[in-house]
Amino acid sequence: MYYPEPISKLIDSFMKLPGIGPKTAVRLAFFVLNMKEDIVLDFAKALVNAKRNLTYCSSCGHITDKDPCYICEDDKRDRSIICVVQDPKDVIAMEKMKEYNGLYHVLHGAISPMEGIGPEDIKIAELLRRLQDETVQEVILATNPNIEGEATAMYISRLLKPTGVKITRIAHGLPVGGDLEYADEVTLSKALEGRREL
Amino acid sequence: MYYPEPISKLIDSFMKLPGIGPKTAVRLAFFVLNMKEDIVLDFAKALVNAKRNLTYCSSCGHITDKDPCYICEDDKRDRSIICVVQDPKDVIAMEKMKEYNGLYHVLHGAISPMEGIGPEDIKIAELLRRLQDETVQEVILATNPNIEGEATAMYISRLLKPTGVKITRIAHGLPVGGDLEYADEVTLSKALEGRREL
Repeated sequence: MYYPEPISKLIDSFMKLPGIGPKTAVRLAFFVLNMKEDIVLDFAKALVNAKRNLTYCSSCGHITDKDPCYICEDDKRDRSIICVVQDPKDVIAMEKMKEYNGLYHVLHGAISPMEGIGPEDIKIAELLRRLQDETVQEVILATNPNIEGEATAMYISRLLKPTGVKITRIAHGLPVGGDLEYADEVTLSKALEGRREL
Repeated sequence: MYYPEPISKLIDSFMKLPGIGPKTAVRLAFFVLNMKEDIVLDFAKALVNAKRNLTYCSSCGHITDKDPCYICEDDKRDRSIICVVQDPKDVIAMEKMKEYNGLYHVLHGAISPMEGIGPEDIKIAELLRRLQDETVQEVILATNPNIEGEATAMYISRLLKPTGVKITRIAHGLPVGGDLEYADEVTLSKALEGRREL
C-alpha cells in the first residue's frame, strides 16, 4: 500500500479519463488535496449534475438540460433549415461561428462498416421523421470530411432525394490560414473542384 | 450560451486542474457524460473523500487517512533513521523502492529565498522536536538535487550538527540507464567527485 486509500481511489478515478495515465493521475489527485474544499465540492457536484441532469433533446438529439433544447425551443431560429452533424460537439462548433440560424440534427455517429455501425445505429430514422412536416426546405449535411462522414452524407442524400427537400453538403477546400504547400492532394483537388467565380 | 449549464460547470471544474486547458476540459466533460453513472458517482465520492478524509500525519507530515500514518505506526520499521524529504510524493517514491525501512519526515517545501520561503515556513522545527528523544541516530537528507533542495539540506545539516546525530545526504551521480554522453557537466562532476572504490 503506497497511497492511503482515499487518494488511491481518486487516482483510479482520474485514470478512467481519456489521455490521463498513472503519473498525471497522481499529479491531479495531489493537486486536488491542495485545492480549497468548496472548489472540490463544486467539482464533485458538477460531475454528478452533468451525468444526472443532462439528456439528449428528443427533437434534434443535442445535449441539453431541458427538453426540447434551447435551440429547438428558440422561436427566432429558421425552422426551414436543418444542419445534420455527427456529434453534440459539432453543434457547439457551429454555434460558436454565430452565423447559422437554423436547426440541427445530431446523428450520434456515422456509418462505418469497419466498426459495424450501420444506418440503423445512428439517428437517421429520427431525421426522416422530422422531415415529414413540411416546414423543412433544406438539409445541410455537415458530417465530418472523412470516409465515414462522406459515406453517411452520401447515404442520407440518396435517402432524402425522393422527398424533394434541397440537400446540400458543406464545402471541402483549404482551411483558412492554411498553406497551399502543405495541403494534401485530396483536399487540394476538392478545393480546385469546388472553385467559384469571383 | 454554447453549453447547457451542467456541462459548462463541469468544464470549468476540469479547467481548474493543472495542465488541463479549455479543449481538454471539453473532451473530458463529454467523456464523463458517456461514462456509466456509478463510475461518475464513485469519482465524485473519491474527490470529496480525498479532500475530507485525508490529513497530514502529526508526526512525520506524510499524507494519511489516520493519525499517526501507517509508516509511523509500523512497529517493524527502524526508528533510528529518519529520511527527510520535501513532499509526500517523495515518500511514495521511496516506498516504491522497497529498500528503505526507516521513518520519514516531510518538510512540505524547501527553502527558497526567491519565492520568499524561509526555514520557518517548512517543517524544520518539527524535525528538531523529533530528534529530542534519543532513538534517532541518522538523518538522511533526501531533498531534491536542485538549488532549493541543496540549500535546505545544507541548512538542516548545519542546524543538526550540534545534536551529534549522523547526517547523510543521498548521492548525486549519473542516473541508472542514463548516458554519459548526455549527462550535464554538474551531474558528471558530482558523479566523479562521489566515485567509490570497487
